[in-house]
Amino acid sequence: MLPDDAKLISVDDHLIEHPHVWTDRLPKADQDAGPRIVETAEGDQLWSFEGEIRPQVIFGAVAGTDPREWSREPVRYEDMRAGFYEPKARLDDMDLSGTFAQLCFPSFPGFAGTKFLQAKDKDLSLRCVVAYNDFILDEWCASAPGRLLPMSLLPLWDIELAVSELDRVAAKGNKAISFVENPAPLGLPSFHTDHWDPLMSRLEETGIPLCLHFGTSGFKHTMTSDAPHPVEVALTGTNSMFTLVDILFSPLLHRHPKLKIVLSEGGIGWIPYILERIDYAWAHHKFHANVDQDVVPSDLFRRNVWGCFIDDATGLALRDRIGVDRLLWESDYPHADTSWPNCRDRAGELFAEVPDDETRRIVQDNARLVFAL
Amino acid sequence: MLPDDAKLISVDDHLIEHPHVWTDRLPKADQDAGPRIVETAEGDQLWSFEGEIRPQVIFGAVAGTDPREWSREPVRYEDMRAGFYEPKARLDDMDLSGTFAQLCFPSFPGFAGTKFLQAKDKDLSLRCVVAYNDFILDEWCASAPGRLLPMSLLPLWDIELAVSELDRVAAKGNKAISFVENPAPLGLPSFHTDHWDPLMSRLEETGIPLCLHFGTSGFKHTMTSDAPHPVEVALTGTNSMFTLVDILFSPLLHRHPKLKIVLSEGGIGWIPYILERIDYAWAHHKFHANVDQDVVPSDLFRRNVWGCFIDDATGLALRDRIGVDRLLWESDYPHADTSWPNCRDRAGELFAEVPDDETRRIVQDNARLVFAL
Repeated sequence: MLPDDAKLISVDDHLIEHPHVWTDRLPKADQDAGPRIVETAEGDQLWSFEGEIRPQVIFGAVAGTDPREWSREPVRYEDMRAGFYEPKARLDDMDLSGTFAQLCFPSFPGFAGTKFLQAKDKDLSLRCVVAYNDFILDEWCASAPGRLLPMSLLPLWDIELAVSELDRVAAKGNKAISFVENPAPLGLPSFHTDHWDPLMSRLEETGIPLCLHFGTSGFKHTMTSDAPHPVEVALTGTNSMFTLVDILFSPLLHRHPKLKIVLSEGGIGWIPYILERIDYAWAHHKFHANVDQDVVPSDLFRRNVWGCFIDDATGLALRDRIGVDRLLWESDYPHADTSWPNCRDRAGELFAEVPDDETRRIVQDNARLVFAL
Repeated sequence: MLPDDAKLISVDDHLIEHPHVWTDRLPKADQDAGPRIVETAEGDQLWSFEGEIRPQVIFGAVAGTDPREWSREPVRYEDMRAGFYEPKARLDDMDLSGTFAQLCFPSFPGFAGTKFLQAKDKDLSLRCVVAYNDFILDEWCASAPGRLLPMSLLPLWDIELAVSELDRVAAKGNKAISFVENPAPLGLPSFHTDHWDPLMSRLEETGIPLCLHFGTSGFKHTMTSDAPHPVEVALTGTNSMFTLVDILFSPLLHRHPKLKIVLSEGGIGWIPYILERIDYAWAHHKFHANVDQDVVPSDLFRRNVWGCFIDDATGLALRDRIGVDRLLWESDYPHADTSWPNCRDRAGELFAEVPDDETRRIVQDNARLVFAL
């Protein structure tokens, strides 16, 4: 059992955009090309964007269902739980499983808005990013301030526009930015360049963290094209390992000592291993590499980075090696990894051996500090 | 300090082939195209094979040197320690650092012989594989039976030839096969096919383990082309995570219950995390995937797989979660990760908190069982 006064704050959940998120906000001229739901002859509801038909998320709307029933078929809104796409119903579902507050990633835009990065018309894309941010700030989260926590997207393709949009959403009370785990596989400048400096400096000044959700770089997890689906499921956390290693050997946290990096859905059981390995690689190979020569990389982790987990008994057992202050809890509703509607009960089992004061920090206090709640 | 009676058996070291390994053994007609050392105008000694000039290994000949002095420049034999390429000198170096026995991977052929897989003339390639195996069995290891332990290569491109060569080297006392960590990225059938069944069945019958050295699939570890070298060094162990996940979700260990899989140089600190994650992915996603529906994947690990480490304090602290019987120690001489000439002293530090009986199993007894020494 969790201590009664521990309020669960989840830093990684997902919302499915209702059909009018963009049509409610885009100007008339964008209505056809912008994201909108179309009904197909087969009776499916799919997203249309720039004239292309795109599916809803796969296995992205399964909370509370039996894994035996999961399917790759598109789901119609009326066949989903309302909590997947309506904020009032979401609150009811949070109450049902004992979650006090949550931070939601988008679905149609990709967790970090990469669909808009990859779109042809970047002017339209910018208006789509702004529309999503207005939706999350003014509609979804405004319905339950303090319980539904706003996370915004940025126009990733233009650093000046990104800084402007950050400033705009910060002024409206935004609490987090969903950013790509690694820009390089998407054709953007890597964390080893100075391209991102203006944005990172503004993030330091505003105190707003970057949430890097695994999978947002598009990097593939498997070596084998005929591997069954569970291979990819089991390996997605390695993307966050790649992200952490890449960032700790980059200039990012040296140039931006107050930047906050959250490794969303990456798991935590691997962190002690990779920190040991990173420090070892640094000590042995730093002399001939363009890396900082003085600061032990794991010290940067302990200053700037937070690990996140849904269900990771190994990581909780290793919490002293990671740092109890580095850990954030996630519910992942309505995706396949969630234990909803049993989030609080499952957390009680997972934290059974953890002292109450540490439990409170991991499920609630750390999130309040990182996201300035 | 290690217990005095614990004899260190390293299951992962490397030899650099002397210049005549192949010219001593190939027929006259192969002398020009087969692997041989050429002297360049710049004064370098490089390998020539099928008319192409190829470098020696990078950072592959550094044991006992200061990391500040490491360089990517080619090294001449007379500028290396003799122990890198001469078995008698190797024994002296093993005595110097307190290693009793070791298993060596090749250098020029690639750790699993993939240079011969990728060669144009596969008849020549077969003779090159046979020549390497005769070298390791009749020359390198014959000079110190029981201390230099023979590991052979296979002609990966032809399953019938591979079985024949396995039978040939098994009859000569071979103790291990170096195989690719994943065949798929090399254009070979994956572990999800039945292609490898005849070989795996013969391995079960002979009791000879497959050593899957990280990196042998050629799979790249980084997302970022401009990442500094330590990024790749820190991430190489993730290849073994990929390998383990791929194999545990394949039919391999269900069809071949006696097969022994050794994850060479993969590290061990990540194993509890990934086993938990594998079982979770299996429980949630098995119903719609072509995977075994009954056996919990981590049970296969505990029956068929061994983890290997050079210097992994996290993994040793987690030994009860992995299984003390699953762990094998490595020295990695003469590569960058070795602590030579201080292998025994460094192992003493690393095992300081481990009870003597468990230490003996990890540094010596497990290897005797796995490799039938």
